[in-house]
Amino acid sequence: MVASVLRRTRAVRYVAPALAPPPIAAVWIRFSSSQATSAARELDADECRGFANARGAGVDVDVSFPTYMVWGSNTGVGKTLISAGLCSAILCQPGVGRRSKDLLYLKPVQTGFPADSDARYVYEEVSRAGRLRPEAVSESLFICNHTLQVSPAVQSSVNMSGVVTRPNFARSGDGPSSGVHSRGMKDFCSYESQLLQGAETSNRSEVLESTNGVHGQGQRPMQSRFTCKTLWAWHDPISPHLAVAREGSAVPDSLVVESVQGLLVALSNSKTGERNGEREDARGDWAEKWAILETAGGVASPGPSGTLQCDLYRSLRFPGVLVGDGKLGGISTTIAAYESLLSRGYDIPAIVIVDAGLSNEEPLLQYLRHKIPVLVLPSLPEDPKKSLEEWFGLAEGKFLELRGVLENAHLKRLRRLEEMPKKASDILWWPFTQHDLVAQDSVTLIDSRSGENFSVYKADSTSATKVIAQQFDACASWWTQGPDTTLQSELAREAAHTAGRYGHVMFPENVHEPALRCAELLLGGVGRGWAERVFFSDNGATSIEVAIKMAFRKYIVDHGLGDSPTDGGSQEQLKVVALKGSYHGDTLGAMEAQAPSVYTGFKQQPWHRGRGFFLEPPTVFQRQGRWLLQLPDVYQDDESSASVSSWKSRDEVFDTCRDSTSLANLYSRSIDQQLASAAKEEYTSLAALIIEPVLHGAGGMDMIDPLFQRTLVRECRRRGIPIIFDEVLSGCWRFGAESATELLGCSPDIACYSKLLTGGLVPLAATLATQPVFEAFRGISKLDALLHGHSYTAHAVGCASAVLALQYFSDPSRNPNLLRDGRRLRELWSPELVSTISSHPSVERVVSIGTIFALELRASGAEAGYASMLSKGLVEGLRHEGIYTRPLGNVVYLMCGPLTEPKTCTTMLQKLLDLLG
Amino acid sequence: MVASVLRRTRAVRYVAPALAPPPIAAVWIRFSSSQATSAARELDADECRGFANARGAGVDVDVSFPTYMVWGSNTGVGKTLISAGLCSAILCQPGVGRRSKDLLYLKPVQTGFPADSDARYVYEEVSRAGRLRPEAVSESLFICNHTLQVSPAVQSSVNMSGVVTRPNFARSGDGPSSGVHSRGMKDFCSYESQLLQGAETSNRSEVLESTNGVHGQGQRPMQSRFTCKTLWAWHDPISPHLAVAREGSAVPDSLVVESVQGLLVALSNSKTGERNGEREDARGDWAEKWAILETAGGVASPGPSGTLQCDLYRSLRFPGVLVGDGKLGGISTTIAAYESLLSRGYDIPAIVIVDAGLSNEEPLLQYLRHKIPVLVLPSLPEDPKKSLEEWFGLAEGKFLELRGVLENAHLKRLRRLEEMPKKASDILWWPFTQHDLVAQDSVTLIDSRSGENFSVYKADSTSATKVIAQQFDACASWWTQGPDTTLQSELAREAAHTAGRYGHVMFPENVHEPALRCAELLLGGVGRGWAERVFFSDNGATSIEVAIKMAFRKYIVDHGLGDSPTDGGSQEQLKVVALKGSYHGDTLGAMEAQAPSVYTGFKQQPWHRGRGFFLEPPTVFQRQGRWLLQLPDVYQDDESSASVSSWKSRDEVFDTCRDSTSLANLYSRSIDQQLASAAKEEYTSLAALIIEPVLHGAGGMDMIDPLFQRTLVRECRRRGIPIIFDEVLSGCWRFGAESATELLGCSPDIACYSKLLTGGLVPLAATLATQPVFEAFRGISKLDALLHGHSYTAHAVGCASAVLALQYFSDPSRNPNLLRDGRRLRELWSPELVSTISSHPSVERVVSIGTIFALELRASGAEAGYASMLSKGLVEGLRHEGIYTRPLGNVVYLMCGPLTEPKTCTTMLQKLLDLLG
Repeated sequence: MVASVLRRTRAVRYVAPALAPPPIAAVWIRFSSSQATSAARELDADECRGFANARGAGVDVDVSFPTYMVWGSNTGVGKTLISAGLCSAILCQPGVGRRSKDLLYLKPVQTGFPADSDARYVYEEVSRAGRLRPEAVSESLFICNHTLQVSPAVQSSVNMSGVVTRPNFARSGDGPSSGVHSRGMKDFCSYESQLLQGAETSNRSEVLESTNGVHGQGQRPMQSRFTCKTLWAWHDPISPHLAVAREGSAVPDSLVVESVQGLLVALSNSKTGERNGEREDARGDWAEKWAILETAGGVASPGPSGTLQCDLYRSLRFPGVLVGDGKLGGISTTIAAYESLLSRGYDIPAIVIVDAGLSNEEPLLQYLRHKIPVLVLPSLPEDPKKSLEEWFGLAEGKFLELRGVLENAHLKRLRRLEEMPKKASDILWWPFTQHDLVAQDSVTLIDSRSGENFSVYKADSTSATKVIAQQFDACASWWTQGPDTTLQSELAREAAHTAGRYGHVMFPENVHEPALRCAELLLGGVGRGWAERVFFSDNGATSIEVAIKMAFRKYIVDHGLGDSPTDGGSQEQLKVVALKGSYHGDTLGAMEAQAPSVYTGFKQQPWHRGRGFFLEPPTVFQRQGRWLLQLPDVYQDDESSASVSSWKSRDEVFDTCRDSTSLANLYSRSIDQQLASAAKEEYTSLAALIIEPVLHGAGGMDMIDPLFQRTLVRECRRRGIPIIFDEVLSGCWRFGAESATELLGCSPDIACYSKLLTGGLVPLAATLATQPVFEAFRGISKLDALLHGHSYTAHAVGCASAVLALQYFSDPSRNPNLLRDGRRLRELWSPELVSTISSHPSVERVVSIGTIFALELRASGAEAGYASMLSKGLVEGLRHEGIYTRPLGNVVYLMCGPLTEPKTCTTMLQKLLDLLG
Repeated sequence: MVASVLRRTRAVRYVAPALAPPPIAAVWIRFSSSQATSAARELDADECRGFANARGAGVDVDVSFPTYMVWGSNTGVGKTLISAGLCSAILCQPGVGRRSKDLLYLKPVQTGFPADSDARYVYEEVSRAGRLRPEAVSESLFICNHTLQVSPAVQSSVNMSGVVTRPNFARSGDGPSSGVHSRGMKDFCSYESQLLQGAETSNRSEVLESTNGVHGQGQRPMQSRFTCKTLWAWHDPISPHLAVAREGSAVPDSLVVESVQGLLVALSNSKTGERNGEREDARGDWAEKWAILETAGGVASPGPSGTLQCDLYRSLRFPGVLVGDGKLGGISTTIAAYESLLSRGYDIPAIVIVDAGLSNEEPLLQYLRHKIPVLVLPSLPEDPKKSLEEWFGLAEGKFLELRGVLENAHLKRLRRLEEMPKKASDILWWPFTQHDLVAQDSVTLIDSRSGENFSVYKADSTSATKVIAQQFDACASWWTQGPDTTLQSELAREAAHTAGRYGHVMFPENVHEPALRCAELLLGGVGRGWAERVFFSDNGATSIEVAIKMAFRKYIVDHGLGDSPTDGGSQEQLKVVALKGSYHGDTLGAMEAQAPSVYTGFKQQPWHRGRGFFLEPPTVFQRQGRWLLQLPDVYQDDESSASVSSWKSRDEVFDTCRDSTSLANLYSRSIDQQLASAAKEEYTSLAALIIEPVLHGAGGMDMIDPLFQRTLVRECRRRGIPIIFDEVLSGCWRFGAESATELLGCSPDIACYSKLLTGGLVPLAATLATQPVFEAFRGISKLDALLHGHSYTAHAVGCASAVLALQYFSDPSRNPNLLRDGRRLRELWSPELVSTISSHPSVERVVSIGTIFALELRASGAEAGYASMLSKGLVEGLRHEGIYTRPLGNVVYLMCGPLTEPKTCTTMLQKLLDLLG
């Protein structure tokens, strides 16, 4: 057996007095600030890289090598034993070729330190195993253990043993950093290392003698490396959130995540081969890399900030091993822990339990339907003081099996990720997409979502990189999204609860709690003051179809048309009044309310006629920092339109005191004339008004002059034309108010809600109506009823999600963006930056309201192609910067959620501005 | 202090030797079979009622009094202590009026018996508390403890102590029973009781002397009663499923559930006042009832059969108290256990933890957002042998608080249940419903679903009953449902996982695993052999709108129509070929493919024109046990139609060898003539065929002659008319095959799937198409693409649910109804009963296929009203029998899921037959 303990020159050696867990003798190496030698600097730049230098906010995480979390179904179930055994199995796999390893074991959060140090235990155990089995060590194995920051309590307990400190070790660095730091934690940087020689190394003694300075150049080859790291350690053996409180220190969640990311980036970038002079070639990156990240306590034990660990690490979504419990009660805690991980979107390809003679694996396998293996490790010796050497020997086969399971799961995942874009191109039929224009390598593979961010898989065949990158979902996934990470997690639980409680249940003549509660919230929220009935359907288009049927019936009843429903109907042609450029959905009934366009042509929908009277609306927008009005010719009138042509702020545009201006009169007169002339057509009735209040979304993010829409509503109401608001986009806080009716200052008879309604989880729509609209369907016959319905009407999961989301968005204790009155969101888009962008020479106009910021790129006539090119470049640039957007022609928009932090919006605006150049 | 131990005359007294847990002395009373005295019979009829006599399959469960489960986040967290303290608090609440109590404590499953007996512990602790605080006992309190069945191992351990057995005690009875029994368990019926006198009782000694025979008449008033019951006990202190295996016995899940139900029915029926001669008046039912049901181990610990307890008790869905863990790691196990209960649809109005000095309640409350209280009980004495008397004293206030929390939660739930039907009538707008015809008391309040069953709240103001009743969802909630309880539970977990992983993410030009996997499964399943592309949308109607757009484009391209998409389209009027009586959804585009009917009139949808050429289809059905063909006049032809007019079996109807019959020629000729004459109309193209294969659902469960549909498809294909199959109803095993194409023996170009697609959880639809259809949308311009899409296109939760459901239904290891070839379900509806019903004089015709059984009630012309009345009566009768159905006019149908046991179908058919009379 060959083993060697490496000691650095000029390093202070610190032997922890009786602190390390028996039976392993402790050997610690630490640097003092006065001894900041080149060796120590080297340590900074290499061993500590990632923690300080490469904090990974927005960093791509390499998925080409396996990274696994180790989770516990409870505390004390043996996570560290499994970590140690797994690390040994990875490093010392017998009978496998000589491929070198670069393994990182990470314990981000450790309490009970230094008496308890899981990293240390793993370090010692792997060393022991390597010493025992030199034939399994490939040529040589460098092993080190490193503790970065500790609480003051740890520091003083160690100081008492006479060791000096080294300030600001972890904070120097030049890598990406969000500027978040721990508070009260002290730099520690304990370090120990060993070099093990494999059985095949020809000249062992030579190696032994030359191991000082392994990081230098021209040294002997060192093929494998095992790095153990503890990032933060506290003294008391309690939950991290309590240790933080007791020991006066703090580590923010973002720092934990970024540090882990950073260390993985460092591992990804490291080239074991670089250390070997002869290997600085194309094979420099040939080491087989692994990372094992051991959590603290159970899956839902709090981390340092109090955030549950399963939530804390969620944005990374590394697959994991769950260490179950083989003892009495362990079936329950294992299953419950598994389900908690599951509901947060984790993949758990293996469960491991330490046997306690109860065959807990059998019910677990039954529960798992044998889809996930449950590996059973031998029982532990009854005497807790007994060495586990024998146990590890007995368990070795299982650890190798575990390694195999994880390796296979990793490869399977990678293979699937690699094949998905092609398969998608081959069998999916995307909406609104010309497949011939989508190159296979431009397909975005979305591996998961965490709050507002996509995790996107990116592979580059030339550089052979395979990473998961974060992209802010700045199209809010077709304007549906609102959750932050907490709401997403709560929505998942609510969906589980509701699916478990109801699945889906029949709705007509029935009632269930989610539907009723959702209706109550809608009537008390978006429908407040006007709506009295709620009709559920599945999406925006169906809610519009329903709304039009409602409005037409109201009109038919009010105007005494076609009283016999069975006679095939009146000869009257009913039309909607609508605005040019508005959009209400893709089913035929919704499309008919849309002015003819390239989207409604014969090849698209041969049945489309455009059964509406379509008015040209005046629009408002920001340019050069001012809000401007653009009047179509029909409203041009020297006197009125000239009176106010620009405003300083959006508030002025929406001010209802504009109702008494001459422009209001002009709108009123013109609308009156247009409606009157349209109504003259024989057998034609204008039987409904349908508008998107405030802003035409799909039409190009055109903000309509609110005064015009308010006037139009008044004119139609005067004529007995029922009013429909299509709030599919505007509703549920998208425009900074719960409903756009609050912005417009007038109410409809019927309004449609969808998209953000469920917080962005599943499709659901609601058409709200006044009681008089409802009355138009009452009668003695079923044939008078609204004979429209969808199978999943008011499905429980959708309604329950909506209840949660509506309450969440409107709750000041949960939505930090709510202003004090609870009726408006604070301004999310920096007015200064918006103004600056609106003054940019490439920018034609800017609109920002609520969660939406949009800009139109300047282009005229022949230049449209240029603008389209420009928007393409801009969108690509934004995606490269981690912002996923989709343009609407030459309109580029950013959309956040009602919970998004304004600073995130500012960052996006800044990046956009930078890209505009 | 007044206390009395009641002893029955002629009862054998059995003192368990050192088996009962200290510090409580054991007093057991047991009956021998040879001593079956009147007292013992009385015990049967009263104390044991419910277990043996009132097994509750299909029984209504009273919700007028609180029934709570006690769940543990792990074993050994103090469930029994909490149960005991809570029971004391319920019975001995100080300062509250003299209202008497009738409290049932139930421990269905006990292991480690008799050394461990939680019921016994609770019994003793409550006795002790009552003795300590006579002032809190109202007048008198009768306490008893009862163990019903034990394993042979328990029995022999007890027999060794010389106690005789009493055979078949638990099996005699005349109440409802499913005939399910335990196997190998032995009747035990140990019994002990006490009578406590309250401080206010005037003459205590008198009471003491007359307590023998409390169940008899003319005795002293006895106001309160506390019954502890253990239903089944095993000897070894291990998980019940292991004890069952080791001790050779079995208790089926259904027996556990029915026994619990039965005991609660008994509690509901019991009238404490009846025991008191002077109270046999209207106040007979005045006792305040409670039931506490303590589970074994943790929430997901297996019960006797191996089924996890959280699943085992799910159909009862009693609210519960979760006993969390105050120790290190307890935050995690408590949260995980809570989430496991949540995902199975339970309500948990309170969490209780025993303090361990770690303030675990703080992170728990933070996690729960303070919506659920976390009650903290004092730390237990460190010495486990120390009496807990002092601890219970310290904890008393918390137990009273817990009682208050549970009481309030119960009252809040009741109040909500009571108000919901009215609120629903006031604010909901039901689809396809004439609200004026829905009396408020006829609103069905669905409290939950468990597999195929609704749990329906029923209140009767005259009898003051408030119950939750089970109803089989025999309309499959508008034909969407498929899950059994296991699939429902798995769908809930899958929904949670997918929501946690993805929420919803943008689809066009993107790919995510659930959408891709779902598409793969669809193409390999329902689309096998013909489909190559999958387009997702939200529901049946939108999938049809998409299908029609696809078919029209294919036709336009193939026939060189309107080549410029921007020119407003060709003058050509495109029409669909469709069958009269078919139905494809309620959006305008889908409605246009429907022949004009009362549902499409001017008042319903003024825009509807019926843009189709509608053929009258021949139908087939069963009558007098034979399958008959009904030919519309247009196909009447003496020679061909007379050749075969009836068949013995459905298989003969579907046999493709009919393709060579003269009827096939007749169909072919007639269809050819009809299509040719329709195509002659100027500017009119028949540009798509759309059919519901095999059966018209909403049209009245009319089975179309498959030979006719097959011939129609062939004729249309010959003319270059694209074929659409509307498989919204027929797809995904509804008709006993994965797709109706397998039944018809021909494939479409385009087909639509929804309803059962997600297993019945959330809306999702898919339109499948051949590659040539897809090719018709390819081109260099986006404007050639299919410009149709919905925000939640391919939403992850829907796709993941579909993946699970499609796999589940098609997996022989999970779907016991799959025949060996894996392509067909076994016959679910008893052919004999179906034949009998088809011969009933009230029955015009019967259709049964796959999961559907339908009958048309006989009526002609003026009698239609009668038939409608008859169907109303039949539907009411079925609902009364626990079968929720909705008629289609005079067609009554029963629909089950692909996983439903045939015997359930048989039971329903039998009840239907009985009701037909």
